[in-house]
Amino acid sequence: MNALLTDLYQLTMAAGYFEAGKIQETATFELFVRRLPLNRNFLVCAGLAQAVEYLLNFRFRPEEIAWLRTLPQFANASPAFFDYLAQLRFTGDLFAMPEGTPVFPGEPLLTVRAPLVEAQIPETYLLSTIAFQTLIATKAARIVEIAGQKAVVEFGTRRAHSPQAGVLAGRAAYIGGCVGTSNTLAGMQFGIPVFGTAAHSWVQTFAHELEAFRSLQQLLGPNTVYLIDTYDTLEGARRAAQLGKPMWGVRIDSGNLVEMSRAVRRILDHAGLKEAKIMATSDLNEYKIAELLAAKAPIDAFGVGTDLATSADVPSLSAVYKIVELRQGEERRYTAKLSEGKRTLAGAKQVFRFSDHDIVGSSWECVGCKGGPPAEALLQPVILNGALVQPLPEIQSSRQRSLDSVHRLPRSLRTLFESKEPWRVEYSEELLALNARVQRSLEQEAKP
Amino acid sequence: MNALLTDLYQLTMAAGYFEAGKIQETATFELFVRRLPLNRNFLVCAGLAQAVEYLLNFRFRPEEIAWLRTLPQFANASPAFFDYLAQLRFTGDLFAMPEGTPVFPGEPLLTVRAPLVEAQIPETYLLSTIAFQTLIATKAARIVEIAGQKAVVEFGTRRAHSPQAGVLAGRAAYIGGCVGTSNTLAGMQFGIPVFGTAAHSWVQTFAHELEAFRSLQQLLGPNTVYLIDTYDTLEGARRAAQLGKPMWGVRIDSGNLVEMSRAVRRILDHAGLKEAKIMATSDLNEYKIAELLAAKAPIDAFGVGTDLATSADVPSLSAVYKIVELRQGEERRYTAKLSEGKRTLAGAKQVFRFSDHDIVGSSWECVGCKGGPPAEALLQPVILNGALVQPLPEIQSSRQRSLDSVHRLPRSLRTLFESKEPWRVEYSEELLALNARVQRSLEQEAKP
Repeated sequence: MNALLTDLYQLTMAAGYFEAGKIQETATFELFVRRLPLNRNFLVCAGLAQAVEYLLNFRFRPEEIAWLRTLPQFANASPAFFDYLAQLRFTGDLFAMPEGTPVFPGEPLLTVRAPLVEAQIPETYLLSTIAFQTLIATKAARIVEIAGQKAVVEFGTRRAHSPQAGVLAGRAAYIGGCVGTSNTLAGMQFGIPVFGTAAHSWVQTFAHELEAFRSLQQLLGPNTVYLIDTYDTLEGARRAAQLGKPMWGVRIDSGNLVEMSRAVRRILDHAGLKEAKIMATSDLNEYKIAELLAAKAPIDAFGVGTDLATSADVPSLSAVYKIVELRQGEERRYTAKLSEGKRTLAGAKQVFRFSDHDIVGSSWECVGCKGGPPAEALLQPVILNGALVQPLPEIQSSRQRSLDSVHRLPRSLRTLFESKEPWRVEYSEELLALNARVQRSLEQEAKP
Repeated sequence: MNALLTDLYQLTMAAGYFEAGKIQETATFELFVRRLPLNRNFLVCAGLAQAVEYLLNFRFRPEEIAWLRTLPQFANASPAFFDYLAQLRFTGDLFAMPEGTPVFPGEPLLTVRAPLVEAQIPETYLLSTIAFQTLIATKAARIVEIAGQKAVVEFGTRRAHSPQAGVLAGRAAYIGGCVGTSNTLAGMQFGIPVFGTAAHSWVQTFAHELEAFRSLQQLLGPNTVYLIDTYDTLEGARRAAQLGKPMWGVRIDSGNLVEMSRAVRRILDHAGLKEAKIMATSDLNEYKIAELLAAKAPIDAFGVGTDLATSADVPSLSAVYKIVELRQGEERRYTAKLSEGKRTLAGAKQVFRFSDHDIVGSSWECVGCKGGPPAEALLQPVILNGALVQPLPEIQSSRQRSLDSVHRLPRSLRTLFESKEPWRVEYSEELLALNARVQRSLEQEAKP
């Protein structure tokens, strides 16, 4: 947890707000994704737990403030500003969608309402943890959806973007529906099931493959997964079959997985090991898994690494954190951007989910209360006045929420490619009317 | 620093090595990249400092060991194994290329030689920090090369894969040649110059854009960069020009950057502000910068975020960590894989760099000593017997090494696309002869 883990301009702006006498103003920022990336018809939000931990522990350490004072950018900042930074805590409110909720462009995943500086500085950290985990939970949900009844395990830490990314990818992939991760720390920190048995180096350190297999079996018993492709996959399968039970099964990590899995299945069956399972790894992703399943490859479980932990086909989201209103005493001002291609909608919002569409309304509206079909208001209070309202859900509940709610989405959205019938997201009349007024006033401001 | 931040199979293998009486064997592992990714003709290695920090602080905490004991995978492990884990430290050797060195497929970026378990467990962490930073330093080197004399600043933390990835991306981008980063923590931790002034929210929190600009100028003086596209870019430029000096210049973050930069340049020049600079941001990368420069857009500096911090066109490297030899007492065994498409070369290696090619030889060879042109042996001792040999270079030296050595590469490699004349990497006769022997013996082992 580190308040200094932010973009420098958040801190120069903080100094500017301080000097301009604006630190008493209350700002509302919303974190949302501008557009759906390639081949995605929905996103699954994740990362809230780390966002909450950050906000609850937000503070600058004395040595950090001492270092900031040495920067040329703060040459004109008053000493009182640094005293202000030293005592700064997050005293505001956080509203958020529960982890595991499907979310669509323009819908806030979270809303921060706090004194201006407290709301501004967290932008960078919140984006980097929420957008990343949402990216990975979404990728996992796609893979799990395509894999159907077959288990998917996240194996990607080694190719993740930093060790921490590996841990958080394991967490997000679990929320997205994976059965677990190879990342041991993620297992301990978050209570996620952990998987893994042995690598090629295990086989290589023994003079003979059979000896390596036997030692593994002695250690792991019914959890044994023989990695059979170090030298020759079929010979490896024969050796695994020779040892027989107890075993979970075998893993294949190279070659043509359709042909190899069929040949290995025959070897195992022929040895009377019909319950022995086959796990496949080797640069898998949802597209390749779809091909393997279409070819009816007899694979029981998939280990997915690089492509999952980096969301390789879509390695980032167009996630942003934008100010939507500002309150000074009784005065309220709604804010928007008119920048070409990057417009934003003013005013704090709420997202109402109906069975077949969403309505984004103003935060004070109750769209579902006006009669008609019921709707769920997705943004819920998480932190009020700097304190956690109630414990966050267990990660198992977030995973179940994701599995259940993705399953409830129309089948046309649960495909590998862009659907011609996207989820319908509408804006309430009240929100649109507010924005028409705001836009007229800003266009006035934009004129010479 | 956390020994538990690894794949579970490293720990089940550790238990297996322990039970099989193999913990006294000394293993040599090499970390290398299998192949050059799309459009890359070289890689720039980075991340060594974090790898060293990890190895020097490697240990399991008591609560971690207590948790491991609860896992079904360790049901058969003996109590002595957990005592062994509790006292485990890294007592081996690390050889590595200095950060900022160009590296090519098959060449070890680092070599770990240590008792088997000490060498095995670090695989996951080493890959996740070295491969990621190498990925980003490489991306930065491409962008910096294309930008020529124009400064490039790394702005991508918000889109990085986790907060830590943002910090390390700032570090790696600096090694790759960027002038600095927006990541304030990276600035403090690593002594990297930090940049950034204000976001759109700064402009939006003031009732009038001119007022926002004036407040920023009061705070930042000659470091002021006005972000002019919140409402209307040209009107924003006129307001910046109206305030005049002191200022560094303006930033444009949306719209057609060629047209906008030209129009903004005219406004600034017309106001007598010829020294005022223009910075461009907005989803930039090396391909877009090449287009902007080809169009002679009057842009003085580039801020590059998402595409740099995620290496968006190539979000991972095929980096692996493979065992190449094993020593038990006087007995030495060379190890390789024969897996389809994933073969490895046995034996510890050294990389000799000549002016126009590399030779990968066996670690005991001195290819450059045989007369003929001089060569640099790139793998240098960093840790011996668990202790740092000498302090690592300052990050500024690593950056200079990268800039200088990339500049010395043939021009044909310093392009945005795949070169038809790749850097020549040859293997020494000794290494090839060794591998011919190893392969024959392993093919024997692979037979029924």
